[in-house]
Amino acid sequence: MRILLSVLLFALAGISSVASAKNWLTLPDVAPAPQSNPTTAEKVELGKMLYFDPRLSSTGTVSCNSCHNVTLGGDDNRAFSMGVHGKLGGRSAPTVWNSAFNSVQFWDGRASSLEAQAEGPVTAGVEMGMKNWDEVVARLEKIPGYVSAFKTAFGDDAVISKDNATKAIASYERTLITPNSPYDRYVKGDETAMSKQQIRGMNSFSQVGCAACHSGAAFNGPILPVGTGFYFYFPTFTDNSYVTKYDLLKDKGRGEVTKDSGDDHRYKVPVLRNVALTAPYFHNGSVKTLDEAVKIMAKVQLNKVLSTEEAGDIVAFLNALTGEFPEQTFPRLPATNGKTLTP
Amino acid sequence: MRILLSVLLFALAGISSVASAKNWLTLPDVAPAPQSNPTTAEKVELGKMLYFDPRLSSTGTVSCNSCHNVTLGGDDNRAFSMGVHGKLGGRSAPTVWNSAFNSVQFWDGRASSLEAQAEGPVTAGVEMGMKNWDEVVARLEKIPGYVSAFKTAFGDDAVISKDNATKAIASYERTLITPNSPYDRYVKGDETAMSKQQIRGMNSFSQVGCAACHSGAAFNGPILPVGTGFYFYFPTFTDNSYVTKYDLLKDKGRGEVTKDSGDDHRYKVPVLRNVALTAPYFHNGSVKTLDEAVKIMAKVQLNKVLSTEEAGDIVAFLNALTGEFPEQTFPRLPATNGKTLTP
Repeated sequence: MRILLSVLLFALAGISSVASAKNWLTLPDVAPAPQSNPTTAEKVELGKMLYFDPRLSSTGTVSCNSCHNVTLGGDDNRAFSMGVHGKLGGRSAPTVWNSAFNSVQFWDGRASSLEAQAEGPVTAGVEMGMKNWDEVVARLEKIPGYVSAFKTAFGDDAVISKDNATKAIASYERTLITPNSPYDRYVKGDETAMSKQQIRGMNSFSQVGCAACHSGAAFNGPILPVGTGFYFYFPTFTDNSYVTKYDLLKDKGRGEVTKDSGDDHRYKVPVLRNVALTAPYFHNGSVKTLDEAVKIMAKVQLNKVLSTEEAGDIVAFLNALTGEFPEQTFPRLPATNGKTLTP
Repeated sequence: MRILLSVLLFALAGISSVASAKNWLTLPDVAPAPQSNPTTAEKVELGKMLYFDPRLSSTGTVSCNSCHNVTLGGDDNRAFSMGVHGKLGGRSAPTVWNSAFNSVQFWDGRASSLEAQAEGPVTAGVEMGMKNWDEVVARLEKIPGYVSAFKTAFGDDAVISKDNATKAIASYERTLITPNSPYDRYVKGDETAMSKQQIRGMNSFSQVGCAACHSGAAFNGPILPVGTGFYFYFPTFTDNSYVTKYDLLKDKGRGEVTKDSGDDHRYKVPVLRNVALTAPYFHNGSVKTLDEAVKIMAKVQLNKVLSTEEAGDIVAFLNALTGEFPEQTFPRLPATNGKTLTP
């Protein structure tokens, strides 16, 4: 039944398992923004401040950047993230880089936008640990520089609110794009941009069937309306040793959200841009290397056993998806002169 | 005896309790560097990478910047810092900004240089939690970008070592200087740079006696040879309610290091630059506001009770010590493609 549904999904998505040349898309320089939150320089600047501000956590020690570190691959390279008081989360942090190209957010797609996603971690007990957004807003209101920055970003009558804070954070995140990877330069015509092994790997990636799901500019599936997730079962083929070795059936994925058993073990197809930088792999971070992750994906999703050479080629290709990271200046976080807001 | 020693120290330091005009010094634009570690752009760049790299901690979650946050006042605005697994340190993190102007480091002066200071937190169990520096070096050696960055900074034959890593971090820290505060501009002749209240506070700061210890460009005492600490007893006057209320005698300060009871409750006189940004105050972070800290200092160090107005003026003056923070770009941390080095 699971396989049947998968096949059905393939058909519905209208994707050939062998990508044709026109299917190799390059990464746009600008991310789409919802009509309700057009990207402006002022919102980006405010959002960057909030993104890096550890005062959005109960202890004053954890910022968005703690687990989605933009100086690295946009995650924390851990199986499970570590939040306030050293508490551990239950899934591996996805990268923030190019997350603007997801039509839903979180592994289980429970947030329909970057704005909605930004609400969650701040008040999650094992992440940033604030009681609720009222507490967050009350704290931010005590920081004069934020009072003015929210007005600059949202207008003179604007107040500090969850809605405005998450809009600003999402606006900043929409600037986190990594164009001009070797892959992009190759697709645009620079035949020297990828090595021979990477070109072989690109073909294998398509022929083996990876590109069936991992298509599009961000390799996370077709462009769908915001809020419409492109999900797939993981693992699809369960009769193999990987499933137990890496405990791949413990987490119910989207089923945990919808409580519909038909959604059990379904996950958003993740972005593969910069995937070489985001070990360990999978929703549970159980797989330490990209090489092993590629072999597992072939087996549990496509029921194929890759040769060492084929896996190596695909890994080489995936390394060609590491893009150029835009230079950014540090935000200067606004002060509370002569007092502190954290313990 | 304690008071006698204090008076003796005053005399030895040759400081008048009323600072004359020539004693108001402005902050240099460049920090002195030891002959053994001249500051170079390459070392600064490497040091910045190391300073922001959470992979220098056992969990991969804590970097130097976690507790000495340069996007804020160079500390974490907490009483006690939170290290790996949520563990708490025993003293409040001093600011990294202008720390290059300290002749010794740590509250108890146990490190004679920024280089020596940088050794400590990385392997402290409650801070970054690495077993030892061999483990740190072994981890860094697995990151190809560091292997080359160490060579760029220290020469083609250079290896990754504790010595080179701490030299690089110290070089970066020597660039963390905040010139051009309202105070600096006032002293340089711009009479409008400080408010009337701040000017009154500047005079009170001198006349009350604060400037006896908090002299010099960084307000941390006279310029002494590197490794020679300028210490003072805190609290000096113990017959008051503050001492018990804020538990000021629990920590033995420098006495914990030297095991000499004559050093009990002695501390390095801390930098006052940007002090408005580094609440809570004192070695134990027990005092939440600068206003309260000023009143306590007057009582426990000078046996004086400040009027509300006088304290307010001094606080206003201390706010004039907030300088200009240099614009910095994020470092791009070198990758370990397809694998992770942390749990």
